[in-house]
Amino acid sequence: MRVARVATASGPRPCVADGADWAVVEDAFASPPVKTGERIPAEGATLLAPVEPTVVLGMLHNSGPDDRCLPPQAFQKSARTVVGPGAPIVVDPTKGAVKGEAELALVVGRPARNISVADAPAYVLGWTVGNDVTASDQAALDETRTQAKNGDGFTPLGPWIETDLDALAQALTASVDGRVVAESSTDGLAWNPFEVFAYLTTHLTLGPGDVVLTGAPGTAFDIAPGAVASCAVAGVGELTNPVHALELPDHHEGA
Amino acid sequence: MRVARVATASGPRPCVADGADWAVVEDAFASPPVKTGERIPAEGATLLAPVEPTVVLGMLHNSGPDDRCLPPQAFQKSARTVVGPGAPIVVDPTKGAVKGEAELALVVGRPARNISVADAPAYVLGWTVGNDVTASDQAALDETRTQAKNGDGFTPLGPWIETDLDALAQALTASVDGRVVAESSTDGLAWNPFEVFAYLTTHLTLGPGDVVLTGAPGTAFDIAPGAVASCAVAGVGELTNPVHALELPDHHEGA
Repeated sequence: MRVARVATASGPRPCVADGADWAVVEDAFASPPVKTGERIPAEGATLLAPVEPTVVLGMLHNSGPDDRCLPPQAFQKSARTVVGPGAPIVVDPTKGAVKGEAELALVVGRPARNISVADAPAYVLGWTVGNDVTASDQAALDETRTQAKNGDGFTPLGPWIETDLDALAQALTASVDGRVVAESSTDGLAWNPFEVFAYLTTHLTLGPGDVVLTGAPGTAFDIAPGAVASCAVAGVGELTNPVHALELPDHHEGA
Repeated sequence: MRVARVATASGPRPCVADGADWAVVEDAFASPPVKTGERIPAEGATLLAPVEPTVVLGMLHNSGPDDRCLPPQAFQKSARTVVGPGAPIVVDPTKGAVKGEAELALVVGRPARNISVADAPAYVLGWTVGNDVTASDQAALDETRTQAKNGDGFTPLGPWIETDLDALAQALTASVDGRVVAESSTDGLAWNPFEVFAYLTTHLTLGPGDVVLTGAPGTAFDIAPGAVASCAVAGVGELTNPVHALELPDHHEGA
């Protein structure tokens, strides 16, 4: 099942794909979602970020077998950084270099605390594409990653959620201005998405709509204002966002 | 003006103090808030966390003049950690020592990005009491602080917001089981609340209801299941929460 949030004249609506339409549902997290009868033609529909998370977590050092020497380690991203397909990533030119990272994003389906790896799939609503945008020069200045990870539009998600996906081996592709700049696979993650998810719930409660950006196994790429960044996960789709420059106020004195 | 969120049979309501009552308002962030006419006697009222933040930030190394050698540095706390007066702080006994920290909490009033220190007061709705609960042994294992700062009930806020307060010199008091265990003042912060707030907005957007825990100038204190933790800010009030032990699932194998 493909799940999206679609803009309408009366506000965003949760939807499931149904032929050439998006069928509006009462609650995308219900099992199964109940259709209201309202339909939106898929052609020309405006897709928003497919969920409105309360908590967004991203992973450090989760690439390649060597990273299994360390436990999974997460940073938090502000929910205010989440944007949908086509919305701008806004870069502050005074804060140094910026990278995108093409990632498989896990969408939590129900309250999860201290779950086991074996049980983890039952707590997942589905999977979307995430671009974990990072002000990479700020990471060296702030080990909490608050400064590096929270610019405006720094967490594009979308275009939709696929509820049925083999998360363990999907190709990841990053492109800038339509040219492929990084190719990898989720099988390059040190800790797989279910291991990451279960581990995180030993430290904090996650709930419906929360998002775990599962890691970038060689999928980081340079971006700058004027570029168009695309991230794709095989079996899900492609997420494309333009990169804009932040407008600075008159009183701004630099980094 | 004193602002609270009060539980009613039909759900939480934003309120302002009015004599012996809480007067329900349409929107606590309106200037001024408009009363609906509904009133709740203050005696016996159940106060909830006074806001529902999207973003919660806390400060590292913000005590004493030496900490001005470094820029302000923030960590994020999950909005799911926020609880109100009387709600339990839930401690996982497998994760090591836990501390409370009595802090002045800044509540953001309107969207704020790249604001100046001089302009910062105009972006503040008011001030409440925060207990920045920390699994302190986890901090050494995870420099992002995700593991240390996000247990259930780890961000008690309340009991209400005072919109008129001299934030720069208010006494901070921490008590356990009614016995004072730490006393300090917000004038012991290295970077004052307006400096912290303005700095943070050079890195990320904050908005209505977001909370900045401004720092613990010598107000950290040990807590453990069975204790009752109280934090007080002069000019605001006192916030009291019991400490419970997390129930662990059968499959749990320890830290």
